[in-house]
Amino acid sequence: MQIISADWIVTSDAEDTVLTGSGVVVEGSTIVQVGPLQELRTAHPDAELVDLPGHVLMPGLVNSHTHLAMTMFRGLADDRDLQQFLQRVVPAEAVVLDAERVGTATRAAAVESLLGGVTTALDMYFFPDAVIDACDSTGLRVITGPTFFGGPGPEGVGGQERMDWAEQWLADRPARPGWRPVVGPHSTYLLAPDELVAIGELAARHDATIHIHAAENSGEIDTVVAAHGDRPVALLARLGLLGPRTVLAHAVHLDDEELRQVVSTRTACAHCPASNMKLGSGVARVPELLAAGAPVGLGTDGAASSNDLDLFTAMRLAALVHKGVSGDATVLPATAVLRAATIGGAVALGLEESIGSIEVGKLADLVAVDLDRPHTQPVFDPVSTLVYAAGRGDVRHVWVGGRRVVRGATTCLVDTAEVTAGLAALRDVVLAAAGS
Amino acid sequence: MQIISADWIVTSDAEDTVLTGSGVVVEGSTIVQVGPLQELRTAHPDAELVDLPGHVLMPGLVNSHTHLAMTMFRGLADDRDLQQFLQRVVPAEAVVLDAERVGTATRAAAVESLLGGVTTALDMYFFPDAVIDACDSTGLRVITGPTFFGGPGPEGVGGQERMDWAEQWLADRPARPGWRPVVGPHSTYLLAPDELVAIGELAARHDATIHIHAAENSGEIDTVVAAHGDRPVALLARLGLLGPRTVLAHAVHLDDEELRQVVSTRTACAHCPASNMKLGSGVARVPELLAAGAPVGLGTDGAASSNDLDLFTAMRLAALVHKGVSGDATVLPATAVLRAATIGGAVALGLEESIGSIEVGKLADLVAVDLDRPHTQPVFDPVSTLVYAAGRGDVRHVWVGGRRVVRGATTCLVDTAEVTAGLAALRDVVLAAAGS
Repeated sequence: MQIISADWIVTSDAEDTVLTGSGVVVEGSTIVQVGPLQELRTAHPDAELVDLPGHVLMPGLVNSHTHLAMTMFRGLADDRDLQQFLQRVVPAEAVVLDAERVGTATRAAAVESLLGGVTTALDMYFFPDAVIDACDSTGLRVITGPTFFGGPGPEGVGGQERMDWAEQWLADRPARPGWRPVVGPHSTYLLAPDELVAIGELAARHDATIHIHAAENSGEIDTVVAAHGDRPVALLARLGLLGPRTVLAHAVHLDDEELRQVVSTRTACAHCPASNMKLGSGVARVPELLAAGAPVGLGTDGAASSNDLDLFTAMRLAALVHKGVSGDATVLPATAVLRAATIGGAVALGLEESIGSIEVGKLADLVAVDLDRPHTQPVFDPVSTLVYAAGRGDVRHVWVGGRRVVRGATTCLVDTAEVTAGLAALRDVVLAAAGS
Repeated sequence: MQIISADWIVTSDAEDTVLTGSGVVVEGSTIVQVGPLQELRTAHPDAELVDLPGHVLMPGLVNSHTHLAMTMFRGLADDRDLQQFLQRVVPAEAVVLDAERVGTATRAAAVESLLGGVTTALDMYFFPDAVIDACDSTGLRVITGPTFFGGPGPEGVGGQERMDWAEQWLADRPARPGWRPVVGPHSTYLLAPDELVAIGELAARHDATIHIHAAENSGEIDTVVAAHGDRPVALLARLGLLGPRTVLAHAVHLDDEELRQVVSTRTACAHCPASNMKLGSGVARVPELLAAGAPVGLGTDGAASSNDLDLFTAMRLAALVHKGVSGDATVLPATAVLRAATIGGAVALGLEESIGSIEVGKLADLVAVDLDRPHTQPVFDPVSTLVYAAGRGDVRHVWVGGRRVVRGATTCLVDTAEVTAGLAALRDVVLAAAGS
């Protein structure tokens, strides 16, 4: 049993409670008590005390849309439009990807995530077992599963064989606290309606989360309308794929009817401001979605497009961009942004029973951020400080399910230098494989 | 004499040269040679070698518009529109400001700047001698001078007395390498046209830089048009205050004629994307200004509005925002953004002869950034990595005029913890003085 105390505890509970002079009691993987530090110490005199003056303790950040292994393509194709980007990245992927390399790049992504205060990621890529093993080795909580890109992919498993594989994969990995099975149909432009329906039925059989790109940019809208007569989200609504177990990555271009469909079905949106800006995709209707009560998480997208897995940057961008484009400095206040990055992501991923806030009974996914820094003082409101001034470099300690995975800004379970060297070593093979 | 070598040297010279296997020879305050490392070592066998594998060496970043001492108000008034923001900050300023407190907050701002790779700042505030002393104590290069807000200000010197003080202040501090005298008329809405003309003449007598807020938001435009019949930048043009020694802070709302006037007069613009977004001010016409060859620097504005002094964040925002709002992923590529943050700022400040690039004869304002991190690997292009993946937390070593001021992410000339504590101690007096 341990008691973790900090100057401020930002809980992300339903009332956005911020505690001072308080602590969190962790037993095994779980938060068993939250309250005034003196009371906790009296009640648990033998508990280990982790006292963090100058720090804020917050729920672990939830990355609601990423492709972790794409760290290997970070910076390969910057300052290009989507078509030029794909011309360079897709050939490299076709040549480079195997389970080992995906594992290597994912392990580095997991270390990057944890050092930046991310404790959970919703991943979409290939070789899900390699991804899970890589994340497990670092302590990062990941939820992922079989993906469908309209072909056999680098796993070399296509058609009905891929459906059968996915069926068994999902059956073998039912939901438990902190985990849900996931199925990842890429998009309405790479998959035909009948494939999407079949994947939706597959997900329903296993109560799996559906993780799909949707309405990312205007070119996609045109393509899907031309092919299927509906815009992407309207098509998903028609096919029955919207719902509380669906995560729409990006969801930039929603018309009013689609926005209404997203809200009424409690479909989640993963807002990825860095990627949307960098690729010139547009600005998602996040203030309206939040005002309507829709579940909204924050995501980084993959590092090939965004170019990192930094949810502090995602928070800052979300808080700034919507003010900038609307001209209204009061939209997306810091509290709303922090909620999206924590409990909002947890709801999106269908894990709100077990993660996303500091509350009794939840898994102890906790991040301690040092606010006693020249760029974060003075602290008038710790939530504002977290969103507008702090950064990944201020993360000092991270626990996932009660286990310390970052101590003093250093990973505990893997050697960061060794993991980074593994990622760096992929540079030459990627470069050789990339389209010119 | 020392030789500094790194895996990459990003020079920001006219050809955007990036060197590998090379070094920079520094003698006293000055860069005396740049070239292949082996040649340098042979030519200077007795020079101290600072070898930085995995690092990129870049010119010190130039913050082209800030109010350093406003770190004391960081986070005091977030998520409010400009009017609500001013209602809270201005009363606090009126009560709190004196030379000592400005010095304390500026010293912390200087430490924040240096730790984030900023080596030069153009400051606008009160008590310029306290500001300069505070920056000098840390090693930060600052250029600043008397400001005019339409009243005696916290210095308690107004009217003709203020003009006389400014006259003597500027006369006593003529330009030298790395320094120019500056005069800071606040804006066309706080100062009358005859005051602006007098300040312009004052600046001309001393070849001083004119540092003025202009065209920050639409409310300002309306106010100035109503009062003077011209938009702010058009008014400055009519009054003769545009020119190569003028820095327009923000310059968000330029009509086509104003943009033409800025370009034709070689007036500089300090682009402050974080502040402009956070306050809902709008999006500056930076791609057009750059395409027309106008000098554009990057600024953070003061920490009361932005909320930090992080030019890495400013670079990321500049690179992302203009892509996002234009829908064109090719505008403001990484190289252009890095130029704005280095040599662009130097040109804006009128210091391009002495700082802003790694070239022989310039002052050795140098920053070493560690790219051997999980969030920065692999490195396909070090400029892309600096703009899209690296951050202030990756700055390891900083030299200003050849003097090491940051070593191993630790300040050399002042104790960061002590300086931070000084800033933190201002919290309660600020809070007591702030409007409700």
